[in-house]
Amino acid sequence: MEKTNIGIIGATGYAGEELIRILLGHPKVKINYLAAKIETATACEKIFPAFKGRLDLVCAELDLDKLNKSADVVFLAVPHGAAYELVPELLEAGKVVIDLSADFRLKDAVLYKKWYHFEHKNKPLLDKAVYGLPEVYRDKIQKAKLVANPGCYPTAAILAALPLVKNGFASPEKIILDAKSGTSGAGRTLKQDLLFSEVDESIRPYKVNEHQHSPEIEQELSFAAQKKVNIIFVPQLVPITRGILSCAYMKLQKKANTSELIKLYKEFYRGEPYVRVLDAGVFPQVKAVQFSNYCDIGLKVDEESNTAIVISAIDNLTKGASGQAVQNLNIMMGWEETLGLA
Amino acid sequence: MEKTNIGIIGATGYAGEELIRILLGHPKVKINYLAAKIETATACEKIFPAFKGRLDLVCAELDLDKLNKSADVVFLAVPHGAAYELVPELLEAGKVVIDLSADFRLKDAVLYKKWYHFEHKNKPLLDKAVYGLPEVYRDKIQKAKLVANPGCYPTAAILAALPLVKNGFASPEKIILDAKSGTSGAGRTLKQDLLFSEVDESIRPYKVNEHQHSPEIEQELSFAAQKKVNIIFVPQLVPITRGILSCAYMKLQKKANTSELIKLYKEFYRGEPYVRVLDAGVFPQVKAVQFSNYCDIGLKVDEESNTAIVISAIDNLTKGASGQAVQNLNIMMGWEETLGLA
Amino acid sequence: MEKTNIGIIGATGYAGEELIRILLGHPKVKINYLAAKIETATACEKIFPAFKGRLDLVCAELDLDKLNKSADVVFLAVPHGAAYELVPELLEAGKVVIDLSADFRLKDAVLYKKWYHFEHKNKPLLDKAVYGLPEVYRDKIQKAKLVANPGCYPTAAILAALPLVKNGFASPEKIILDAKSGTSGAGRTLKQDLLFSEVDESIRPYKVNEHQHSPEIEQELSFAAQKKVNIIFVPQLVPITRGILSCAYMKLQKKANTSELIKLYKEFYRGEPYVRVLDAGVFPQVKAVQFSNYCDIGLKVDEESNTAIVISAIDNLTKGASGQAVQNLNIMMGWEETLGLA
Amino acid sequence: MEKTNIGIIGATGYAGEELIRILLGHPKVKINYLAAKIETATACEKIFPAFKGRLDLVCAELDLDKLNKSADVVFLAVPHGAAYELVPELLEAGKVVIDLSADFRLKDAVLYKKWYHFEHKNKPLLDKAVYGLPEVYRDKIQKAKLVANPGCYPTAAILAALPLVKNGFASPEKIILDAKSGTSGAGRTLKQDLLFSEVDESIRPYKVNEHQHSPEIEQELSFAAQKKVNIIFVPQLVPITRGILSCAYMKLQKKANTSELIKLYKEFYRGEPYVRVLDAGVFPQVKAVQFSNYCDIGLKVDEESNTAIVISAIDNLTKGASGQAVQNLNIMMGWEETLGLA
Repeated sequence: MEKTNIGIIGATGYAGEELIRILLGHPKVKINYLAAKIETATACEKIFPAFKGRLDLVCAELDLDKLNKSADVVFLAVPHGAAYELVPELLEAGKVVIDLSADFRLKDAVLYKKWYHFEHKNKPLLDKAVYGLPEVYRDKIQKAKLVANPGCYPTAAILAALPLVKNGFASPEKIILDAKSGTSGAGRTLKQDLLFSEVDESIRPYKVNEHQHSPEIEQELSFAAQKKVNIIFVPQLVPITRGILSCAYMKLQKKANTSELIKLYKEFYRGEPYVRVLDAGVFPQVKAVQFSNYCDIGLKVDEESNTAIVISAIDNLTKGASGQAVQNLNIMMGWEETLGLA
Repeated sequence: MEKTNIGIIGATGYAGEELIRILLGHPKVKINYLAAKIETATACEKIFPAFKGRLDLVCAELDLDKLNKSADVVFLAVPHGAAYELVPELLEAGKVVIDLSADFRLKDAVLYKKWYHFEHKNKPLLDKAVYGLPEVYRDKIQKAKLVANPGCYPTAAILAALPLVKNGFASPEKIILDAKSGTSGAGRTLKQDLLFSEVDESIRPYKVNEHQHSPEIEQELSFAAQKKVNIIFVPQLVPITRGILSCAYMKLQKKANTSELIKLYKEFYRGEPYVRVLDAGVFPQVKAVQFSNYCDIGLKVDEESNTAIVISAIDNLTKGASGQAVQNLNIMMGWEETLGLA
Repeated sequence: MEKTNIGIIGATGYAGEELIRILLGHPKVKINYLAAKIETATACEKIFPAFKGRLDLVCAELDLDKLNKSADVVFLAVPHGAAYELVPELLEAGKVVIDLSADFRLKDAVLYKKWYHFEHKNKPLLDKAVYGLPEVYRDKIQKAKLVANPGCYPTAAILAALPLVKNGFASPEKIILDAKSGTSGAGRTLKQDLLFSEVDESIRPYKVNEHQHSPEIEQELSFAAQKKVNIIFVPQLVPITRGILSCAYMKLQKKANTSELIKLYKEFYRGEPYVRVLDAGVFPQVKAVQFSNYCDIGLKVDEESNTAIVISAIDNLTKGASGQAVQNLNIMMGWEETLGLA
Repeated sequence: MEKTNIGIIGATGYAGEELIRILLGHPKVKINYLAAKIETATACEKIFPAFKGRLDLVCAELDLDKLNKSADVVFLAVPHGAAYELVPELLEAGKVVIDLSADFRLKDAVLYKKWYHFEHKNKPLLDKAVYGLPEVYRDKIQKAKLVANPGCYPTAAILAALPLVKNGFASPEKIILDAKSGTSGAGRTLKQDLLFSEVDESIRPYKVNEHQHSPEIEQELSFAAQKKVNIIFVPQLVPITRGILSCAYMKLQKKANTSELIKLYKEFYRGEPYVRVLDAGVFPQVKAVQFSNYCDIGLKVDEESNTAIVISAIDNLTKGASGQAVQNLNIMMGWEETLGLA
């Protein structure tokens, strides 16, 4: 069987590393090209010693010709603002493109200025890109050439809120999202506040109610609600490498108890391979989803105030980034959706 | 100068250890007696090697006679339900008592049945005990013989919510408290889910909206508001040993922006030695309060929804337990409030 | 294709969990039976929430009849002293047995009294059991019905020392082994010193030069050297869940420099799927082998004193326990050795 | 009482932070000046939020005039190579200088080229500087104007090896030092391998047998032995912020058992306020010395090979840096040696 050739741009970051980890176990693909912003071309095993003896490739600065010859599918695991100029060329060259950056997630081009500090000049492609949340857009992903892979916080938050928002349970008032993430979500960049000595033994809120993932969450929940949904979003850094635990507090418009809502969630996600709705009294924990593509969801209703507490957990590098990207790859290629992800 | 003799019951737990750590540096006291549930009398330095050469005492099963002869002030750092029968005897013997357990925190005796699973038969003493939050009850603490030292979550939550509740800003709707704690808050008991291998690299909600600290928080906020205040309270365990970060989401009844509320908080806590209100744009982090008696508070208003996000951080063993207990000791004895705590 | 049915005894511990994790991805087996010391029969997903939706089995107290009907291959992941009476029955029932405990690792029955505190009465079976280190005993494992899977420290230590010991480089003097392990190696038992609050932010030596893995290491190195090899062995607990880093300091009997010894090691382990000998100047780190079956080895010679510093890293639950057990399974069954382990 | 004014150069690093933490509790000093390599002058509480409300100073680029007017004692907590040109001016201005960098630790100027990559041109001052290990040089420190504060690894290693080396027990063969450190020892510099995501859940050897602390350890042990002592030194990074555990393996020249050597150590360190020799069977652990100035030492003899295993633990920022610096300050000023350190 001929394998599909994969190229990864941005291979030196954590999402890139996780893509390599997953794809090395995928039966239908071959990683064939690695690029990144890197001073000297470097063997992959020097960048990630875990891959010694498993992937014999050199990672160098992007060379489009070489990429075009080497890969049929391109994953972009580059910083935000670095993908949107590259993608048109890749599509023209006939590549299947899965972009893990934010550059094609927001439908409203104007938002890029405010949240990502660059002018997005490719409105038509924003329209064409499919938001890569299979639980919502599976049909569109099947036909897509460009998938905008969701952010980590949005994946955890949207999957938790979606059933209530879509079914008219959530009130138009603000949804409160209190989310905790491990450090790999912040990437492999050199920032003092990401040093071990700073993160260890601490819990630290950051970008309080002004994180760039907010518009992405609001966009998708508003689409689902068919009206504007607003959120309050407080991300916090905790001393783990991988994982997000997200708590959504949602005022209900109709009375409902815990077991009714759990039933609703189980119906809503029936058949989904990577969403697990937990039974009453059981709640997600990061350890149960680490290194997996699952999103676990548990909930409880505070009946006195008619508020749903919906808690979700994902591995930010897997379902929150590279695992979901591979899930999207499988859907786009018409393969079994779980290939390489079990 | 004659030093005041201190006895600690429950000296083998983390609150006991922290009491010893703090009191060893306190200029006006001498630790003179240690007791705990313990099979064989054991030198303190064997229980806590950190105290080798610093405290030459043996810790044994409680012997009331010996305690009475050895100590003028008694700290109870025992599990909930173990203090309430002991305290009357201590008071009768003329001791000053600071109880770190929950046994005298709740004014409504009935609540003990529901939340702590024992029948509290000493209603008069419940009335007499002073809730040991100096920022609220300093005057009463000065005259008290029995102080009920607040819980860790309540200290962080009450100090964060108090100014808004007291000034009529907080709405009668539910206050949402999303709180994250290190493991020392759960004590030194042998539970599988407190093993390093279970806690490490995870984030885990527990007792979701049914934690026994809920009635304590509601009691104090209701007193402040002079009407019933309800909370939604979701505690979570994170892989740190010491520290709590608590996020309060409070719907405002009057319009207010971030700087107005920060001003209000700074006024409210003016002169308080252990509450630090942070400037706009700055938020608490656990590392900044670890091993200290500070409660740091930062806030931001989501103006669209008129919701205040108030974040507080404490060290659960210090301001959340033993540091606050020593602060109470200082107040009760008429000493400088910060003695031994700087 | 008919799958081979697997039974796991001791399924509730960390080695059991890791066996399940690995075997769920193994194409030729089906986990069909779980047993453990457990008060009430409990669904696997309640014990390990990670396996929700992935393994629909109940774990109960051992029922030999049921096991015999359900499984062709039995993994024993029980505490030391619990396996040796069980194994004869399993072998008589025709099962293939892989024992992860220490009960069949030592050839000298007398040693069990000293190191494991029980009388080993099955000397003939000790002789028949094959020590499951594929790099040494692959041929014997192929024909074995009972494999004694090596301990975690021994795997890291033996693979690091073997080439020098076997080639007569190591002196008859003591080999010094300074080894650091994560907490999962200590199992899931309730011990105060395994609580998160005790392990976190500490490094702690334990069983200094008296760890029960010492005789196992000495036995295998002595077999290789064809004379008695002695070790000094200092294990230390560090705050990670998975992984061992082991440093061997070996006085050389013949002069050799770093590159000569690296060459020797690369020759020695040529073709081995799970031993990676690193280039000069590169050293193993735990992160590079976590969740993998690799043993990474790096070395350097201190030429002044003619001492080899040989450092090895493994994941104690994978190559140090369950991964190696599956590697042995593959060899015993005549399957590709890496099945389920990539 | 007039307080002694303190200036700290290099106040933004971890040793600087720890100096501030300790000196804020010191009854005889006032921190009066802070400098560091820093782009804009910044309030101390912005650099270290823990000091909010405790130290009202701005940290700016070094201004010698200002320093000279503000401080009587100067601590240098600057990177190696930044102190040696500054110190002569400070001494001329009559300051008492405690240098936490390596610039005056080595007596042989030539070694700076090899280990620190700069040419040391101030041989006379190297001779005059006193190596600040009170347990060895207390008398000289009393009269010194310039103290070269020991490195963290050297403090742990020298105190562990000294009694055997000085008493002729240690053989002229290599002493093996296997040492594990937390990340604060590596400073607050931006290096990818110090990111939380890289350090967490790993153990990583680095600078294997070529760490710049080697000559410092060899120098002091050679002085004690009155002959050349060589070491093999393998430092390793573990995921904790503060602390070192160091294991010394020393071949003995005369027969001795564990209790004899423990007796020797207890004699040797009798009266030392910050060295605790543990009883037989008890070994140091990092948690017992964290945030303290203690060096704990435990040992065991492997009688078969006549090798002493000597294990020591310190907090690298306290006894390994700033605590020891304050201990030296106290000695130099003729104050009680433990002031501010209990």
